[in-house]
Amino acid sequence: MKRGRIFSPTGRGSVSAVGEQALIGLIRRWLGRASPPAPRGMGDDCALIRPARRAELLTVDPVVYGVHFDDRTAPADAGAKLLRRNLSDIAAMGGRPRAAVLALALDPRVSLAWLRGFFAGLAAESLRHAVPIVGGDVARLPGAFVATLALTGEARGRAVTRAGARAGDWIYVTGALGGSLRSGHHHAFEPRLAEGAWLARRREVRSMMDLSDGLAKDIGALTPRGASAAILARALPRRPGASVREALCDGEDYELALGVSSRARRGAFEGAFRRAFPRTRLTCIGRFAPRGELPEGALRLADYRGYEHLR
Amino acid sequence: MKRGRIFSPTGRGSVSAVGEQALIGLIRRWLGRASPPAPRGMGDDCALIRPARRAELLTVDPVVYGVHFDDRTAPADAGAKLLRRNLSDIAAMGGRPRAAVLALALDPRVSLAWLRGFFAGLAAESLRHAVPIVGGDVARLPGAFVATLALTGEARGRAVTRAGARAGDWIYVTGALGGSLRSGHHHAFEPRLAEGAWLARRREVRSMMDLSDGLAKDIGALTPRGASAAILARALPRRPGASVREALCDGEDYELALGVSSRARRGAFEGAFRRAFPRTRLTCIGRFAPRGELPEGALRLADYRGYEHLR
Repeated sequence: MKRGRIFSPTGRGSVSAVGEQALIGLIRRWLGRASPPAPRGMGDDCALIRPARRAELLTVDPVVYGVHFDDRTAPADAGAKLLRRNLSDIAAMGGRPRAAVLALALDPRVSLAWLRGFFAGLAAESLRHAVPIVGGDVARLPGAFVATLALTGEARGRAVTRAGARAGDWIYVTGALGGSLRSGHHHAFEPRLAEGAWLARRREVRSMMDLSDGLAKDIGALTPRGASAAILARALPRRPGASVREALCDGEDYELALGVSSRARRGAFEGAFRRAFPRTRLTCIGRFAPRGELPEGALRLADYRGYEHLR
Repeated sequence: MKRGRIFSPTGRGSVSAVGEQALIGLIRRWLGRASPPAPRGMGDDCALIRPARRAELLTVDPVVYGVHFDDRTAPADAGAKLLRRNLSDIAAMGGRPRAAVLALALDPRVSLAWLRGFFAGLAAESLRHAVPIVGGDVARLPGAFVATLALTGEARGRAVTRAGARAGDWIYVTGALGGSLRSGHHHAFEPRLAEGAWLARRREVRSMMDLSDGLAKDIGALTPRGASAAILARALPRRPGASVREALCDGEDYELALGVSSRARRGAFEGAFRRAFPRTRLTCIGRFAPRGELPEGALRLADYRGYEHLR
């Protein structure tokens, strides 16, 4: 893919050539079956959605050109990534996604061909997870492209939060960590919806989150007061070619990290997960140790920094 | 307010000076009681919300620096406007707002003082309408500021959509139209939540929407197939100083437009509204005439254009 393809240098074949009303018509066509008719979908002031049966979940995440994707990313991958990022947040609570709305802020020179690819990727992902795109907004933003998606979902039973782990609990992660950008995992990942739902049904799982800014930074949110995360370097499941540092610091893993009760029967828990998800790794990487009792061999996480967004 | 105050030219006192984690802490503090603790609010992967009792409503709208506000807008007014724009969409369905999530995409040079003002305005509006800000995201966006808010609500009974008017039905609008930018109405408006809820309970109200891109453009969405909107210039309620053209073409009125059954007892309907809302105008501006039967004196709307976002 050539650099700069998202923007049409001459303005030919760009958003400005058709204007907002025609663009919205195109977006409807591109989304196709992923976008139901109003009032259940696009075309009214709000979308009308059947209420959640249990607790409702709500999250929002954008993709920004130059930050979450660039000219090396195929437009369809950028579109799919937008929904996947949000699905990963629903997965982290053990929930089920319901419906999404999309706000586009974009330069009028954005190429229609590029945008069609973006929506093709978004629509395919939307249909695969049965998450309709039910509304949105389009605004002008000179020199940039920001697509923000808000996703509503529902808990399937218990919603697992980040709070709940206790000192002594085990720390587990799904999949492998590090090298997300280099490997293309940052857009091609599979949100852990099925795994998250399964884990939320297990009583020994006390807390859960998805990893987006690197384990070293994110694990703080799961760590109980008065404890430290004691993680063993040799236990870290690493993506091929990723160093220990990359497994700790790279962002965009979109894997689940969870706290498992110290009283759990770990063999039975791990075996049951393996039977349910033979192709997804689940690895114990350490435990939450009482502060001041960091066991030998545990990584000093303060020496590692996760992804920092605004410096 | 001086131009450019949103960006700190030296970087001193800007977002980059504190970084993302500290910024999120500041945002929590600035939002105060408008932001409940996790998992009902900020701080987990998703927010947990009590499900809607009736049909759920979902909408999303941004404010973009340079488009929806600029250096003449006080930061608190920009923050309040962000929520008001979304509340207006809930009002247009006769609904009740529930909770909001916010995605910020911003240049690291955005001034913290400016941002504190923005959140003060957002928090005040959030508390006034009892709509908590329950989560969000912060991303880097060089040279720009985009705040996107998604708002979930619920129908209070019937949700009034844009569809439903028939040829012969009367067209009404609340308030006055035109000159929104000049008068400051574009940020200071009061979302018509109470009026929308009242109107949704009236059987003679067949369809409703909020006016954001100018009546001449927006009325098409309410107009039934085979009919035309026959609007009388002399009937248009205009904001002080606004011309007929401005009342038709200016954007950001955030008033309600509605279709009222041709069989309605208009006097009783108007009287009941006046008693319920003595300070809100409700004006009959014309009717949906069968196509080809445009009555004498009706405006030729094709001669007027509403706000066009992407040209």
